Amino acid sequence: MSHARTRQIGSPTNSLVKVYRRALAKGTTRDGWLAVEGPFLVEEALAAAPAVRTHSVLVAEGASAKFAGLLERLPAEAEAAQVPDRLFEQVAETRNPQGIAALVELPPYNLDTILAGRNLLLLVACGLQDPGNLGTLMRSAAAFGASALCTMAETVSPFNPKTVRSSAGAIFHVPVLYDLSVNDLLHRLRTARVRIVAADRHSTSPLDQADLRGSVAIMVGREASGLPPEIAREASETLSIPIRPGMDSVNAATAGSIFLYEAARQRGFKN
Amino acid sequence: MSHARTRQIGSPTNSLVKVYRRALAKGTTRDGWLAVEGPFLVEEALAAAPAVRTHSVLVAEGASAKFAGLLERLPAEAEAAQVPDRLFEQVAETRNPQGIAALVELPPYNLDTILAGRNLLLLVACGLQDPGNLGTLMRSAAAFGASALCTMAETVSPFNPKTVRSSAGAIFHVPVLYDLSVNDLLHRLRTARVRIVAADRHSTSPLDQADLRGSVAIMVGREASGLPPEIAREASETLSIPIRPGMDSVNAATAGSIFLYEAARQRGFKN
Repeated sequence: MSHARTRQIGSPTNSLVKVYRRALAKGTTRDGWLAVEGPFLVEEALAAAPAVRTHSVLVAEGASAKFAGLLERLPAEAEAAQVPDRLFEQVAETRNPQGIAALVELPPYNLDTILAGRNLLLLVACGLQDPGNLGTLMRSAAAFGASALCTMAETVSPFNPKTVRSSAGAIFHVPVLYDLSVNDLLHRLRTARVRIVAADRHSTSPLDQADLRGSVAIMVGREASGLPPEIAREASETLSIPIRPGMDSVNAATAGSIFLYEAARQRGFKN
Repeated sequence: MSHARTRQIGSPTNSLVKVYRRALAKGTTRDGWLAVEGPFLVEEALAAAPAVRTHSVLVAEGASAKFAGLLERLPAEAEAAQVPDRLFEQVAETRNPQGIAALVELPPYNLDTILAGRNLLLLVACGLQDPGNLGTLMRSAAAFGASALCTMAETVSPFNPKTVRSSAGAIFHVPVLYDLSVNDLLHRLRTARVRIVAADRHSTSPLDQADLRGSVAIMVGREASGLPPEIAREASETLSIPIRPGMDSVNAATAGSIFLYEAARQRGFKN
């Protein structure tokens, strides 16, 4: 027994087990708490306290000794529950479950508060479908000090378990605002005097020649089809990454990350 | 019948069917021909002729009308074979097979010939494990005009079906040299006076302050553990992408792509 308050659960119909099963499959609980699996993400969540609040941890019996140190770091109000290995495997979503999962609450981010800031660097995913790509972008957004990652409706969920895994913990380090409507977001960006920069592979204006200082929102589109026309039309400018003639494009997450790198470079990596 | 020379095959034990089954699973035939699936990759292979030689195409009966135009573009010496849909599904590796596959021969690239060039931009993958990451890097290498993509032993195969899919056809546009030995490659790079630049997240020298013009080989490491120490030690310089303090890193394919972008930017995107 590694944690004084660890509760033993044996039944697959236990309510906490049922909450974990659903949340690990969908990414979140009905309350919107994020479900994460594996020691790396649980560690990252605990390290991001108190902004990120860990509500509970579920551990497999056979892994409880290994994760004793991790369980010791749980906040006082968090619940810890231990289940037989076999039950953990049934609840887990990963192919080779590592025996630990947690339900955590992200801070309640507010777009208006974020838009009140200065020298904003926003990344807006408009229709991206691949969870690995969105997670990779989230990781780059955190690394390059983006003010927020926004996702439009019809974009893969930022809380999709594969997105969260690909983010490698970045979901705890960058504000994520999701399921935004195009018109509302464009209106609010304009009101906040944030320049709307569309990443559009068909643009003839090269990324490296543009000025990306000041407050900008970088809009990236869907993998194959790119940005919806209404966004490309409403943008203050459209830019493309210069690539070799005859080549089509780079990967969508790569493209968004290169835009972030270029913006960060021009700002002297001060974000 | 969409192609005058299309052969009908009904048996799962037919020798061509057996060759396709093995090659689509492994990525290549015993002769080293690349197996590609789906109209996009078959189109890309045909578009890259004569450098890329298409030896045969396998089409599912139900898809042959749809791909008639594609089959018409086959070179005279190529073989076309049609199989029942059910057999195609058994041979295919993708979850939703689109009814067309091909065996193609890449040009016989030679490292010494490549190293005889000027202003080389080489990307060297040292131990990368994820096929999606290697394919993404291949795509970026082609887009930024890299002279070649080299992979060291213990790196995922550049011909892994997932690598090829992620490359989005870039495998037909950038020379790929694979399974190289560390010592041999380092020796040949030095002899050819190619600067060895190691992407190392622990380096304190920022990427954007380095001069990446002239002939350079950018060495990128494994996802979690980075570059093998002997390569970091032997490098002319080690560089890191400046990221926000406290953040760990960006995705491995993203990092390599940003190095390529920065090198291409400094060269005026002339590669």
